[in-house]
Amino acid sequence: MGITLYHFNNSVCSQKVRLVLVEKGLEWDEQVVDLFTLEQYEPEYIKLNPKGVVPTVVHDGRAVIESTLICEYLDDVFPDPPLKPTDPAECAAMRVWTKAVDEGIHEGVTAISFSAMFRERMKGMSDEQRARRYRNIGDPARRDRDRAVFEHGVDSPHVFNAIAAYEALFGKLEKVLADGRAWLMGDIYSLAEIGIAPYAARLEYLELLTVWVEHRPAVAAWWERIKARPGYRMGLSDLLTEAEIEPMNRFGGAIRQRMAERRQEYFEDFLAAG
Amino acid sequence: MGITLYHFNNSVCSQKVRLVLVEKGLEWDEQVVDLFTLEQYEPEYIKLNPKGVVPTVVHDGRAVIESTLICEYLDDVFPDPPLKPTDPAECAAMRVWTKAVDEGIHEGVTAISFSAMFRERMKGMSDEQRARRYRNIGDPARRDRDRAVFEHGVDSPHVFNAIAAYEALFGKLEKVLADGRAWLMGDIYSLAEIGIAPYAARLEYLELLTVWVEHRPAVAAWWERIKARPGYRMGLSDLLTEAEIEPMNRFGGAIRQRMAERRQEYFEDFLAAG
Repeated sequence: MGITLYHFNNSVCSQKVRLVLVEKGLEWDEQVVDLFTLEQYEPEYIKLNPKGVVPTVVHDGRAVIESTLICEYLDDVFPDPPLKPTDPAECAAMRVWTKAVDEGIHEGVTAISFSAMFRERMKGMSDEQRARRYRNIGDPARRDRDRAVFEHGVDSPHVFNAIAAYEALFGKLEKVLADGRAWLMGDIYSLAEIGIAPYAARLEYLELLTVWVEHRPAVAAWWERIKARPGYRMGLSDLLTEAEIEPMNRFGGAIRQRMAERRQEYFEDFLAAG
Repeated sequence: MGITLYHFNNSVCSQKVRLVLVEKGLEWDEQVVDLFTLEQYEPEYIKLNPKGVVPTVVHDGRAVIESTLICEYLDDVFPDPPLKPTDPAECAAMRVWTKAVDEGIHEGVTAISFSAMFRERMKGMSDEQRARRYRNIGDPARRDRDRAVFEHGVDSPHVFNAIAAYEALFGKLEKVLADGRAWLMGDIYSLAEIGIAPYAARLEYLELLTVWVEHRPAVAAWWERIKARPGYRMGLSDLLTEAEIEPMNRFGGAIRQRMAERRQEYFEDFLAAG
């Protein structure tokens, strides 16, 4: 029956799963779920994925959802090459990274991407289209976030929280990588790298990565190592089209100055108080 | 070297880990981290647990953090009796439950508990003590939540989001349990039950559980089955003192009417729009 991947090309969570599929040397059929036309809310898709998000993997007729759990699933079912440490304590430490992505970074990249790009797109929508976009199937937290980011952009509290989350992540990365290790878990390229990579890539395409990485040489070197992997190119960068990349560069670049200022506000306003 | 559990008795995440320890028949040493005196921010504890949250398990000299990951770790290292399905797709489905707890329910129970109880406690604090409580080591999202819930209580958006998250969870539980299965994953009592149990228990102690469960017979019966397990009593309910239970009952009961009204608002305001 094989593997079917329901995904959207430039979705960070879809990229994450594709990075695993490629590292494992797996083949898959694809079904595109167009987030711009809200196909993720179509009843047929909601049956597979009740939250209405991408990706979903259907393997041997069974749906697996949530990108982090899909990655763990694929590593369990296709153990070669392994993408997690064998030692359980190391495995738990690896999952602290993927959990941080799920709990602050994902929200954060959504707020930043939205404030840079989808906000511009939404300005062209009718009120009804916007209301439909806000609806987010019964999740008022997501609705509030989308609405606040549409209204206030980089100045919304959600972008401030995003800056804090990325700051915590990159600060911790620099500290751990400073001992010269190749990968976060030592010699093994793991789900920790795969979990973080699409979120670093998105910042880079938005021309915002330097805000966090220019003074962090260990993170910068690690990021170059990730990008040099054939699996990274095959699962992520080679698949992005110029039509996807150009607006990320342009709209992201337009908010970079304000993002850097808000990061400074974060340091002053918050860490000074701490 | 054995197991040391850094915990706080009436912390939902600590309860979760204790439920696993008890099911596995393990013994452990305990170190109490008093959240009321902010011991979780002491430098020695931050070395073990950089986010400054409980619990932490130290096993054979190595620290494992994040309650959901600790539970997975304990199940990996002490596989008997197993607390997850052997089939990888079933295991991924189980983790959808524990992930939902981590991503909406945990925030939710914090907001609800805060609005019912800690809010009252904070009214007696000095401004400086409150500021320290808000600081939350560099996480502005948590700081904003605590501040908004202190100021607006049940009327804060965070409690509204909590109501939505619990509504989604209990709605899904009723649907899945309606086929008469004993446990969420079928015959096996799993980390799905253990992940959810402390969050249902907290609502029950706050006298709020009926708001969600009175019209959901399958959830109600499943909850009784959980509470009837010796492991539940040994890991959770038997450990709570009257001094802990009485204020939960009293302060929670005092917001029940308003919680039920806000749940109605959620239905009207949101689902009607959907």
